[in-house]
Amino acid sequence: MTDASAADGMPMPAPRPSVAALPGTTNGNATFVEGGLGAVKGLRCAGVSAGFRRNPERKDLALVVTEKPAVAAGVFTRNLFCAAPVALSRQHLVRGALADVDAPTAGGGARAIVLNSGNANATTGEPGMRTAIQTARIAAEHLGCEPHQVLVASTGVIGVPLALEPFVTGIPLALAELGSADADAAAFAGAHAAAEAIMTTDTHPKQAAVSFTATQSDGSEVTYTIGGMVKGSGMIQPNMATLLGVLATDAWLTQEALDLALKQAMAVTLNRVTVDSDTSTNDSVYLLATGATPGKTINPTCPLFEPFVSALVALCTDLARQIAYDGEGATRLVTVSVTGASDDAQADLAGRSIANSPLVKTAIAGHDANWGRIAMALGKSGVTFVQEEVSISIMGLPVCERGLPVPFDEDEALRCFEDNAEITIDVVLGTGEGHARLWTCDLTHGYITINGDYRT
Amino acid sequence: MTDASAADGMPMPAPRPSVAALPGTTNGNATFVEGGLGAVKGLRCAGVSAGFRRNPERKDLALVVTEKPAVAAGVFTRNLFCAAPVALSRQHLVRGALADVDAPTAGGGARAIVLNSGNANATTGEPGMRTAIQTARIAAEHLGCEPHQVLVASTGVIGVPLALEPFVTGIPLALAELGSADADAAAFAGAHAAAEAIMTTDTHPKQAAVSFTATQSDGSEVTYTIGGMVKGSGMIQPNMATLLGVLATDAWLTQEALDLALKQAMAVTLNRVTVDSDTSTNDSVYLLATGATPGKTINPTCPLFEPFVSALVALCTDLARQIAYDGEGATRLVTVSVTGASDDAQADLAGRSIANSPLVKTAIAGHDANWGRIAMALGKSGVTFVQEEVSISIMGLPVCERGLPVPFDEDEALRCFEDNAEITIDVVLGTGEGHARLWTCDLTHGYITINGDYRT
Repeated sequence: MTDASAADGMPMPAPRPSVAALPGTTNGNATFVEGGLGAVKGLRCAGVSAGFRRNPERKDLALVVTEKPAVAAGVFTRNLFCAAPVALSRQHLVRGALADVDAPTAGGGARAIVLNSGNANATTGEPGMRTAIQTARIAAEHLGCEPHQVLVASTGVIGVPLALEPFVTGIPLALAELGSADADAAAFAGAHAAAEAIMTTDTHPKQAAVSFTATQSDGSEVTYTIGGMVKGSGMIQPNMATLLGVLATDAWLTQEALDLALKQAMAVTLNRVTVDSDTSTNDSVYLLATGATPGKTINPTCPLFEPFVSALVALCTDLARQIAYDGEGATRLVTVSVTGASDDAQADLAGRSIANSPLVKTAIAGHDANWGRIAMALGKSGVTFVQEEVSISIMGLPVCERGLPVPFDEDEALRCFEDNAEITIDVVLGTGEGHARLWTCDLTHGYITINGDYRT
Repeated sequence: MTDASAADGMPMPAPRPSVAALPGTTNGNATFVEGGLGAVKGLRCAGVSAGFRRNPERKDLALVVTEKPAVAAGVFTRNLFCAAPVALSRQHLVRGALADVDAPTAGGGARAIVLNSGNANATTGEPGMRTAIQTARIAAEHLGCEPHQVLVASTGVIGVPLALEPFVTGIPLALAELGSADADAAAFAGAHAAAEAIMTTDTHPKQAAVSFTATQSDGSEVTYTIGGMVKGSGMIQPNMATLLGVLATDAWLTQEALDLALKQAMAVTLNRVTVDSDTSTNDSVYLLATGATPGKTINPTCPLFEPFVSALVALCTDLARQIAYDGEGATRLVTVSVTGASDDAQADLAGRSIANSPLVKTAIAGHDANWGRIAMALGKSGVTFVQEEVSISIMGLPVCERGLPVPFDEDEALRCFEDNAEITIDVVLGTGEGHARLWTCDLTHGYITINGDYRT
């Protein structure tokens, strides 16, 4: 995700179809609704072209502004070469959380997130940190808040100084273009523009929103919305964080509840995506709670917490699938499920080894039910199992039972590959109760073209 | 390496130039000589077409036969889905080592190695094991030795039953074609045919031989030869073993010395190669000591041991470089050197993360000195370092000093990529004395074509 020179030097790829859930679809307690971040009351979004990219037709600055200070949580890359915006935003979240979010004058909570694409501001040293600090200051001056109430994020090429000038001119421009805070058409348009502005090699903007209804401690019902946008297509194997993402809800949560909800949801959604096993220097996901819809404050022990996490997981599962399906050069979404591992961590390790295997991924590109490569990837994963206990299915078709080949109809398998956008691989290890689900994509000539051809 | 259906279904790729050291070249105490395994006295080789492959013009059965029982050592894949020939040969090495190698009638030592390409005999269960056992029996009957004195190895597609018939007819055929044991032209021809017969997606056979002279404990000088052949092009990231390889020397070593020498050499040579991070189910490397050249028995504490290991490392370094440069679809050999790590294991981890990064490898394919991707790969590796202490050079050109970009001449960098078959990446971590060197290749459309296109 932090390497957009490809996207700069090349014509935009044709948008690929999306696997985003359609409005009205349900997943658990969550119902998908239109509008992405625009569906969330209490915040406004914009996306403009500020000049970070050589192509003036591409938006490259996104702004998310809350009407009032919002409770804010964040998770970040564990890449040791983490970028300046990651280091700064970490500090700001701590300062914003320490202040009293219910007393805006005290500088609690977050007021804005400034995101740019085209340059990652990574391995840029002190000058890069000064640019990040200045970015937050500029936004704070315009909004009349403290600089630490502004979070920042960057994505694009690594190791190139990030110019401040596009922020100086672009932030006022974006402020003038902010959509509404009322979950209406203007709000949707602003959110869409913001989601476009954070794209690098993504072929389309990625957004989702869900609503859920739950019963509060006093017996009353309340309906909340959670929306989000993400970007990411290459350099995707998040490690305890992921890519760039902004999530928001119109509910009001304690800092502890928001942190915990984000951590729990990431562990089983965006942290389970891999496109190419490469972990970005800039992964950042923010979750804001605007409290714009009246209701009781959600804390980790109240009856609303579990429904909130469940809806957040549904939202982020959809965003994770969108990212995997739009992986650089991808033609198929690949969902790898591992069950029967000794624990969930072992299941994750096994699934990740399959999802990252170039030979598994090229086989899928070749529409080849080559389960021997899946067995190979399992065997090298470091996960403990007995070969004679392992079963593998592809698209529900058993291909390996208890470590032995199962004769299957190759034509039927080929049709499965050709007729479906999503390829499922199910592995049963037979050693315990651990399970994990991961999302990835196939590995095609498109990936090489995007990442290897642009300089030749 | 265990997935040769690609090679079967496609026309043979044009042979790529080799980076093999030329005869007369020296590396440490070793001088490269002609002939591969054929340069080693006391053994004979053959390679024939036995019918494992659909293409009758491709050799697919290799035979290495020693004149007398040889001391034998082996290292094998740690992939849990290890193949039948791996499981059987492990047992045979133990039995051969337990017997007295100096008393042939007792069944000590090894007499032959039978290798086939076209089918890996992996995840084939009991029938696969029976085929491996039968293979050893057939060879033993022809040679008049015990079955456990025969080692076996297979490479090719995984999960497909391996037919016995090609062994029944092919082994006598190969025996009739064996080259001489005298390091002459007939010996060279036999070794070359054997090296051809184990190829899968390799574009050319891979052999090397070295000689070295050392002083024995009684002051006399002795000159020994070590030769070898390997195969491997994809599914290459050996884990404590590697690919398929047969190494042999005309010196005589104790079992302990031979085991130790092989282990030490593998750790810094063939275990430091990665093409695509995928670890084969069939990795096997054998080292035979024929003792055909008179001299004192080498044990781990005698003055000959270190020179022997040093020459073996020189040989295997050359073979490792040949494999990386002939990686599936490769156009460049990439040598990654990491110094200044807290220990050698951390250096290996850092180097492996760079060598396996799809984004680093596609950048090299694109002739792009994109060091930001190298920094990313370092940062995700899990290795401990301080960003501000890290320096990176590409082809000797400093691109990152103490964590910051160094302006460099992009045209000069581009010329370096275009003019050289070998691209060097040097990383200094600044945390200790640990170092490691790894070999890999670039990632190109060729890799996708070989592994993804053949079924579409």
